[in-house]
Amino acid sequence: MLRPGFTGSPLDRADALRNDPDAFGAALSDWRARLLRLDGIDPVLDEQGRLSWGSLAEAPEDAPLLLLGLIDGRPHFAALDYDMPLGATRSPAIFRALGEMPPEEASTYAGARSLIDWHLRHRFCARCGSGDTAIHRAGWGRKCGNCGTEHFPRVDPVVIMLAEHDGRVLVGRQPQYPPGRYSALAGFVEPGESVEEAVARELFEEAGLKVRDVRYVVSQPWPFPSQLMMACVAAADDPTLTIDTTELEDAIWVDRAGVEASMAGEPGAPFLPPPPFAIAHTLFRWWLERE
Amino acid sequence: MLRPGFTGSPLDRADALRNDPDAFGAALSDWRARLLRLDGIDPVLDEQGRLSWGSLAEAPEDAPLLLLGLIDGRPHFAALDYDMPLGATRSPAIFRALGEMPPEEASTYAGARSLIDWHLRHRFCARCGSGDTAIHRAGWGRKCGNCGTEHFPRVDPVVIMLAEHDGRVLVGRQPQYPPGRYSALAGFVEPGESVEEAVARELFEEAGLKVRDVRYVVSQPWPFPSQLMMACVAAADDPTLTIDTTELEDAIWVDRAGVEASMAGEPGAPFLPPPPFAIAHTLFRWWLERE
Ligand SMILES: [Zn+2]
Ligand SMILES: [Zn+2]
Repeated sequence: MLRPGFTGSPLDRADALRNDPDAFGAALSDWRARLLRLDGIDPVLDEQGRLSWGSLAEAPEDAPLLLLGLIDGRPHFAALDYDMPLGATRSPAIFRALGEMPPEEASTYAGARSLIDWHLRHRFCARCGSGDTAIHRAGWGRKCGNCGTEHFPRVDPVVIMLAEHDGRVLVGRQPQYPPGRYSALAGFVEPGESVEEAVARELFEEAGLKVRDVRYVVSQPWPFPSQLMMACVAAADDPTLTIDTTELEDAIWVDRAGVEASMAGEPGAPFLPPPPFAIAHTLFRWWLERE
Repeated sequence: MLRPGFTGSPLDRADALRNDPDAFGAALSDWRARLLRLDGIDPVLDEQGRLSWGSLAEAPEDAPLLLLGLIDGRPHFAALDYDMPLGATRSPAIFRALGEMPPEEASTYAGARSLIDWHLRHRFCARCGSGDTAIHRAGWGRKCGNCGTEHFPRVDPVVIMLAEHDGRVLVGRQPQYPPGRYSALAGFVEPGESVEEAVARELFEEAGLKVRDVRYVVSQPWPFPSQLMMACVAAADDPTLTIDTTELEDAIWVDRAGVEASMAGEPGAPFLPPPPFAIAHTLFRWWLERE
């Protein structure tokens, strides 16, 4: 079974509890309740590189508490500190930590991070402009005190895909990638299109490829800030590339041996692969193991 | 090939044009440019039940024009009238019209509707509360004149799924459904979870089912207001149901003959099926034809 990064959290999201103020109150006063320790929006890790949890007493005064969910019936929270610096940190240190963390821990953190980030960026009501908004449904929404509109956390669907032609796959490189890194092409799904249409559109826009037979493989959440990454493959009959250089610095076709060497980190391999917790990594593995 | 509703628009989204003010200006002054005729946010239909298009001169004065895309190189726009009544109309008339429209026309309309609806609900900056926001990127975003934040249209991923057990599938009914109607269960994907995890969570929350082997089938956009519907199947080993009556009025297991009779509209069939443009319809068809 495929096991992409940022999946497998042991948290029970406890939907019923979110909408029951009495039950939520009981969770808040549960002596077993735990608080995710954060440094800004980055995780504080224990000696084993796992997430660190404290008691609710550690939360900043007046900070709203977001119910992440239950683990073995025990409520787990994160504190929403509005003084957290906005502008997601994506330091090498956090990427290193996420890479070393067990995937299910990274998954728990991913959900918390996306939720906190969304609250920080949505303190005002987009419908009426009021600043009189407050957390709602145990942290899984905000409600406007002025116009009554409920707002829910965003999840932005993204397609990430390998075009295939004659036993080779297309990989591309964005200017901001580390030297030598190539990955699957990707783009946001827009209003009014399906996953399959978004895959075809992005491959045409970025690489000039026409594809057929789009096939979904697997998905993962991505917490920078809150994408839903859906990995796909698609068949290209004509491999001629027309690269959109505003999006991609380069794109190349790589054969099976090349992908294998790249994923194995062999010297002289065609490219440096994406990190293991990125779904492109899972997609390359799936593609190699498919036959 | 599966052909879900609201897919197959002939529009080229012309991404490059959106980000090039000169090219966008040229599209606006192109004498061939067409404007989607709307009645509020509902479509105006011609005698053949197709979308009706006029010239840009028909747009309300000062209404921003959103570039839907190109058809045969010809720019197609929708006007954003901020006086449109908020609160999406989902009248029987529009559902009837959508059901009779060719799917590719419905697809073009779906994208326009979702985009317009998003602008109407997001006139203020969620980050700073300012009302000084304006359309951006040819209509595919808004930019805040106060804090500079760019906002992009929302697409909310939703999973919709059939649990399978022993040749039967699970269908449920929400209280607001027309009498007799049952459909696949569905729910929003949340921050921090994958499509596969959301399917398992929703089936457990709504019906008390534990499932394995979640499999993605196909997707469609849904313009009320802007969902990305992802249809899946999953296997349940234990068919015992615990129905969450806050979400579902009823849920039942239906065998192949029952689904067949329901989709054929036979009298005495176990349920009335969802309309053809709903992806649950596509999912039932796929399930019947799979063998
Ligand atoms: Zn408001
Ligand atoms: Zn602003």
